Amino acid sequence: MIIVMKKRAKQKDLDSVIRWIESVGYRAHLSKGVERTIIGAVGDERDKVRLKAAENMSGVEKVMPILQPYKLASRETKDGNTIIKVGDVAVGGPKCIVIAGPCAVESEEQLMETALVVKKAGASMLRGGAFKPRTSPYSFQGLGEEGLKILAKAREETGLPVVTEVMSASDVGLIEAYADVLQIGARNTQNFALLKAVGLAKKPVLLKRGMMTTLDELLMSAEYIMASGNDNVMLCERGIRTFETAMRNTLDISAVPVLKDKTHLPVIVDPSHAIGQWKFVLPLAKAAVAVGADGLMIEVHCNPQQALSDGPQSLKPERFIKLMEEIESIANIVRN
Amino acid sequence: MIIVMKKRAKQKDLDSVIRWIESVGYRAHLSKGVERTIIGAVGDERDKVRLKAAENMSGVEKVMPILQPYKLASRETKDGNTIIKVGDVAVGGPKCIVIAGPCAVESEEQLMETALVVKKAGASMLRGGAFKPRTSPYSFQGLGEEGLKILAKAREETGLPVVTEVMSASDVGLIEAYADVLQIGARNTQNFALLKAVGLAKKPVLLKRGMMTTLDELLMSAEYIMASGNDNVMLCERGIRTFETAMRNTLDISAVPVLKDKTHLPVIVDPSHAIGQWKFVLPLAKAAVAVGADGLMIEVHCNPQQALSDGPQSLKPERFIKLMEEIESIANIVRN
Amino acid sequence: MIIVMKKRAKQKDLDSVIRWIESVGYRAHLSKGVERTIIGAVGDERDKVRLKAAENMSGVEKVMPILQPYKLASRETKDGNTIIKVGDVAVGGPKCIVIAGPCAVESEEQLMETALVVKKAGASMLRGGAFKPRTSPYSFQGLGEEGLKILAKAREETGLPVVTEVMSASDVGLIEAYADVLQIGARNTQNFALLKAVGLAKKPVLLKRGMMTTLDELLMSAEYIMASGNDNVMLCERGIRTFETAMRNTLDISAVPVLKDKTHLPVIVDPSHAIGQWKFVLPLAKAAVAVGADGLMIEVHCNPQQALSDGPQSLKPERFIKLMEEIESIANIVRN
Amino acid sequence: MIIVMKKRAKQKDLDSVIRWIESVGYRAHLSKGVERTIIGAVGDERDKVRLKAAENMSGVEKVMPILQPYKLASRETKDGNTIIKVGDVAVGGPKCIVIAGPCAVESEEQLMETALVVKKAGASMLRGGAFKPRTSPYSFQGLGEEGLKILAKAREETGLPVVTEVMSASDVGLIEAYADVLQIGARNTQNFALLKAVGLAKKPVLLKRGMMTTLDELLMSAEYIMASGNDNVMLCERGIRTFETAMRNTLDISAVPVLKDKTHLPVIVDPSHAIGQWKFVLPLAKAAVAVGADGLMIEVHCNPQQALSDGPQSLKPERFIKLMEEIESIANIVRN
Repeated sequence: MIIVMKKRAKQKDLDSVIRWIESVGYRAHLSKGVERTIIGAVGDERDKVRLKAAENMSGVEKVMPILQPYKLASRETKDGNTIIKVGDVAVGGPKCIVIAGPCAVESEEQLMETALVVKKAGASMLRGGAFKPRTSPYSFQGLGEEGLKILAKAREETGLPVVTEVMSASDVGLIEAYADVLQIGARNTQNFALLKAVGLAKKPVLLKRGMMTTLDELLMSAEYIMASGNDNVMLCERGIRTFETAMRNTLDISAVPVLKDKTHLPVIVDPSHAIGQWKFVLPLAKAAVAVGADGLMIEVHCNPQQALSDGPQSLKPERFIKLMEEIESIANIVRN
Repeated sequence: MIIVMKKRAKQKDLDSVIRWIESVGYRAHLSKGVERTIIGAVGDERDKVRLKAAENMSGVEKVMPILQPYKLASRETKDGNTIIKVGDVAVGGPKCIVIAGPCAVESEEQLMETALVVKKAGASMLRGGAFKPRTSPYSFQGLGEEGLKILAKAREETGLPVVTEVMSASDVGLIEAYADVLQIGARNTQNFALLKAVGLAKKPVLLKRGMMTTLDELLMSAEYIMASGNDNVMLCERGIRTFETAMRNTLDISAVPVLKDKTHLPVIVDPSHAIGQWKFVLPLAKAAVAVGADGLMIEVHCNPQQALSDGPQSLKPERFIKLMEEIESIANIVRN
Repeated sequence: MIIVMKKRAKQKDLDSVIRWIESVGYRAHLSKGVERTIIGAVGDERDKVRLKAAENMSGVEKVMPILQPYKLASRETKDGNTIIKVGDVAVGGPKCIVIAGPCAVESEEQLMETALVVKKAGASMLRGGAFKPRTSPYSFQGLGEEGLKILAKAREETGLPVVTEVMSASDVGLIEAYADVLQIGARNTQNFALLKAVGLAKKPVLLKRGMMTTLDELLMSAEYIMASGNDNVMLCERGIRTFETAMRNTLDISAVPVLKDKTHLPVIVDPSHAIGQWKFVLPLAKAAVAVGADGLMIEVHCNPQQALSDGPQSLKPERFIKLMEEIESIANIVRN
Repeated sequence: MIIVMKKRAKQKDLDSVIRWIESVGYRAHLSKGVERTIIGAVGDERDKVRLKAAENMSGVEKVMPILQPYKLASRETKDGNTIIKVGDVAVGGPKCIVIAGPCAVESEEQLMETALVVKKAGASMLRGGAFKPRTSPYSFQGLGEEGLKILAKAREETGLPVVTEVMSASDVGLIEAYADVLQIGARNTQNFALLKAVGLAKKPVLLKRGMMTTLDELLMSAEYIMASGNDNVMLCERGIRTFETAMRNTLDISAVPVLKDKTHLPVIVDPSHAIGQWKFVLPLAKAAVAVGADGLMIEVHCNPQQALSDGPQSLKPERFIKLMEEIESIANIVRN
């Protein structure tokens, strides 16, 4: 942390800031400039957020952090990239993987039909929601455990590992019993009780970035999971909320290279939720592969206009097959 | 819902949209303009979000909702304002109430000292966190049940009802045993599992708006709680996330009159979390009262630079006393 | 500026950063922490933005500014508040002034009728657009010089000084010949050619904040005007663009105390453009006065649904009279 | 436009809205639903923004536009894509073109060196600013006409057409005399006086999207230029302002396919200004080509840390050469 003193701060203000820094366990390093005196607080950075309280002291203009508060998720802590194994699938390795399936499990028939389609087209994993976070209490809330059973059956049938969302700390055990990857949804990115719970689980976690979460906050949420003991965290960019209303959310494509610069964890992109309209999913999928994403998450439905959720953005099977073909040639270029 | 057809949509596209609207349980109402044909879908609006799936159909340009999807929270459902009784305190009535106290319960001594100060200055309720949602896993996470016991003791001592945050569905029972109002924090505004859980509780809920929650989404979250059986929901504006970095968050002061136009629920403002700097809390508190808020939530700490959290925005006792005096005269004008 | 080196930066990286800092005219001040070495660049801050280029150098993690780049607009440069005299009106003094009138001058009859109304209700200045910045080229673009003549006539009739917008550097002379205050609109906040032109004018400037202008950028725009020789700049908060769509823009009420902490210039609030709906203008006007604004800008139209622009947010005369009454009692409290 | 009446609107409210719609030149089309009556206003959409004023009328809940207000820029008006010829270069055709060069023309030597580099690497056009819009009045403002002369000399030397920014309506003639493409910068996207002026010019226009401009507003700004007589408008996405601070701006990659769905005009992407850091320019350039952009705009400087502006994001020559190679193979896939 760096504490910037006001231009007209008095010597006694400076003295009491220094005394206070020392009283909370840091060393003070003074630096006098032409217009400002700044004080560095040297010591363990991890709980330095407490030092922000200096802003309440006389003569202090502002307090600026120097280091990132995440450690386990940082590239500084680990050389190379984390590769997460899910069955035979390696996330974060040379192959750009594709997780596909419907937004929600609606019935065995619906899921099985889609699972076979995405398997055949070359997807690496199957997605499908059993517990659905819906903005409205009157919308379809998912089939619950029944949905998990259908997902497990689809895995048996197709061999595809299964990704599904967990919405509550108390459901982690149940979902871990059926699924291969535990998904944390965009509205729970900072649900710290849930993060701690999946941190204790044995299965890998797919952590979606919230619509309002900065990249540093996303990494702090990954840090929660890792600090609880689970190192297998995949990050997922799925669009952020901005002033633009022409699309559902703004896909933050730059998040991919910026995250990969900051962390060793794999980064996945979900263009379907970001854009919210099927006709733009294909170009965005190509962009995500070109920018260097380790994987894609794509919504596919055999009959989108009958879908109980996310119909507008779901691809029909033939469009998904086309997507798989087009991204492959781009992946061949950028991932070698 | 209104479905707008493309300029060059064909008659068969129109026919299949109409057939589909009827197949999912609505009636279609056709209207041909100079440049566009639009189709109204008439029927129960509550799950009309499904109709958005029409955007996947041939010839459809866009699908526009006409009604709000919340019912119980809407002014259309209930005449007059909801007044929530917490002990002797009436939230939403003629008096602008003030909830004050430290960000976190740090010790019995710290809480008790602050509780007596805010009581004496005229606060209506005491706040204090026992379970703290912190961005970093390395920051102070609260005293847990020990903190709840200290809060209960402070209530005994001062007579002030106690507001504290619940972070997980499984903690609702525990917290309800000690607290008078259950607070849902800004990072859990759309934690639907938690909303359902507090919907089953008997105590009133203070629902904070998320940093990127729209007002309609906030009302849908209130609707979740109400649809589960708990009608006593106070809404709380606490700043939204915008591009501006000069303050911690942007206090959306307009949210107060706009919410009060849409809903019968009381609306509270938390300027401390919004602005993040103690020196701007007083003018914002005055603005909140002037704009018509039913209450304020203010962070107070007897020794802010030693606070384990939110030190920069906590008021010292003498500043809080001044605040109580200054808002009173404004409240006298605007609330009569 | 502070240059933060990467954790694993080499000594030769450090050396070349120091050499480079000196080569562009600054002194380097080294500070070694536990995990990072940081280098302060000491010297004239005003064009330090050039130092950002260090981010392109080997071993550099980031470059952080310490000082604000504005000088003339800063409280550090001038004690006390700037009070701007416009005829008999003092902006920034003890009285909270009100600028009122229609969005656009539509005809002599329309302007004159409104001018008399706002004068009688106690407004201090008259607003009205002769050159209108409209999103659509097909919308009413204003009466041009004809509108300016009508404004001048209304000033003669009522004694109210006149505020009107200037859209182009080449129009500054023309508008200065008729108006008392030159308004820079929200879409021109960073039209630097125009800022330089009004900086050379003799009349005071009302500088609106852009919808996505930070407070520091707004002050830099004021600095452009002041650096060109015109010290009489009033700042105007008129709502910023955020993710929220329930209102036209989000009134950033915190901008008022934060600006007044940073600058000696007067700060005005325009709730009409911010909220975009007449029924919320009154509570926001009260909030603006309570938070400490030096003035308000309010749209008034005698027949809003016939207005050629901004009908939805214009107050009818009787509502404006009520507003003037209600804000007066709040102003009496907060401005003494 | 569709006017939605309140649930409890009275018959006389409905009647007066209908009368008013007819009085301003539209036909009213009534549609009664279960919970709402809605009225369509049928007629010329272009100035329908005036109909928003109905929100000031009794019984009206809201007014919703159905059509986009741009015509000339819309795909509905023109089949196929607009291809803009600049010398031998065709923008919007099968080839993805690259405009490269320094942020600002600093000297003849600097520009000429960079021009030869980008020419050799395969760029199609040369960029360089002679009039620079800078946030600070104390920063380098460009060489002015001297810079234009240097640009013209570089064109002679290399054969590359020249793109440079015009900041003021009064400079259009001067710049047209030297440059091949007139650039409108991000802070002038809604400088309507300037848009009209370049609309009268003969040279093509490169219109940058503002940091706060929606796609519909960007198209309205293009409409201004086209309505003034200049059909040769290239749109340029260069990052928008959001809450995320890890990068300078958020590149809105989805803007490319969404714009190309709405308009026949070519769409260019400027990753350098969006991200603000050279090390992320390459992956974003690849993403832009993959998503379907018609061209790229890239900042190149032979000595970035000595650059007078935008040093942090400028590519050194060798990195630019690598970029040209890598995007070519992606362009070969996506543009066939």
